[in-house]
Amino acid sequence: MQTARTTPSRLAKRAHYDEATIHPILDEALFCTVSFAVDGQPMAIPTAFARKGDRVYIHGSVGSHFIRTIEQGGPVCISVMLTDGLVLAKSAFHHSVNYRSVVIFATAEKVTDENERMEALALITDHLIPGRWDDLRPTTSSEMRKTTVLAFSLAEASAKVRTGGPNDDPEDEGLPTWAGVIPMQTVRLTPLAAENSLGTPLPDYLQNA
Amino acid sequence: MQTARTTPSRLAKRAHYDEATIHPILDEALFCTVSFAVDGQPMAIPTAFARKGDRVYIHGSVGSHFIRTIEQGGPVCISVMLTDGLVLAKSAFHHSVNYRSVVIFATAEKVTDENERMEALALITDHLIPGRWDDLRPTTSSEMRKTTVLAFSLAEASAKVRTGGPNDDPEDEGLPTWAGVIPMQTVRLTPLAAENSLGTPLPDYLQNA
Repeated sequence: MQTARTTPSRLAKRAHYDEATIHPILDEALFCTVSFAVDGQPMAIPTAFARKGDRVYIHGSVGSHFIRTIEQGGPVCISVMLTDGLVLAKSAFHHSVNYRSVVIFATAEKVTDENERMEALALITDHLIPGRWDDLRPTTSSEMRKTTVLAFSLAEASAKVRTGGPNDDPEDEGLPTWAGVIPMQTVRLTPLAAENSLGTPLPDYLQNA
Repeated sequence: MQTARTTPSRLAKRAHYDEATIHPILDEALFCTVSFAVDGQPMAIPTAFARKGDRVYIHGSVGSHFIRTIEQGGPVCISVMLTDGLVLAKSAFHHSVNYRSVVIFATAEKVTDENERMEALALITDHLIPGRWDDLRPTTSSEMRKTTVLAFSLAEASAKVRTGGPNDDPEDEGLPTWAGVIPMQTVRLTPLAAENSLGTPLPDYLQNA
């Protein structure tokens, strides 16, 4: 939703407020940065998350300072960025980055329904490793008691997207400097078995993980 | 430096305060997230940066709301995260992430010396694309006037690092579930020339970029 604080001061053409832009970015990004303030001091914690509908979930230890602070319901800012490429222009000034980012302004809702808590943990696990949850033993009640699950509304979320090549000044177009895009990608390499799994075949859902 | 706000509430064994840990993480990460608060509302902006000695530099448009806010000298939190792998344990509870992160608590110092400003822009450019700066035409005074450069001390920086495989509970060790690490890496793909550079050979410094 476009509000005063989700409206950028510059390059407003890069801003998007529709689910069709925002949701796929949240679904592709594996980690977010949760920013919050304590007595005016900003703090930031990178963490895993997952989206369902118009909410995102995070989880953490019931004992963590971070979780205990934000579960009080103060304002937080959740940000994610996917970097798709470095944009090389003919001048330093016009160098840029192709990226897709989302910023969410929200407050934490502590999830208390045990089914929703379990579903959120499954979503977070499968967001990082699709198919993993159903391959695991059930979570114990002791593990659940040690875990806090928080939900955040996407009502005040916005995306910024830059794509394409460099935008050079007309007087620079003829310079012999190479210009273009260096695409970037985050890849998963061959899984390495732990010692307690050396004889265990790699499950199908990790074959192309 | 270890201070109250750089000391984690949990897993303190993962915390580091030495340059030998902090500097290489900052040098490998291409982007940071700058978190700041306006009237208690946290905001976060991903941006490029570079380190020199015990300072990091960022830059931005003199007109950007973000830059104009933090150049006032209020407290900011700069965070970076490198994700090295997903850690799959035999229980959902012990799943984890291998990562190297740095958090910096600092306030912006506006850089006014023109040589230092220029050097900072060169450092930021070459941090993303080593060798690029010297291949570019000189930055103009008009471009410099449109650009703000801010520096931040690393005096209150801390790192967190997790490495290695999963730490399973003893009673889970014998489960037939596959456990291990899926390494992750950010890679650069073949550069794509812009239309104004189709006839320009790719420079050496981009051959293995």
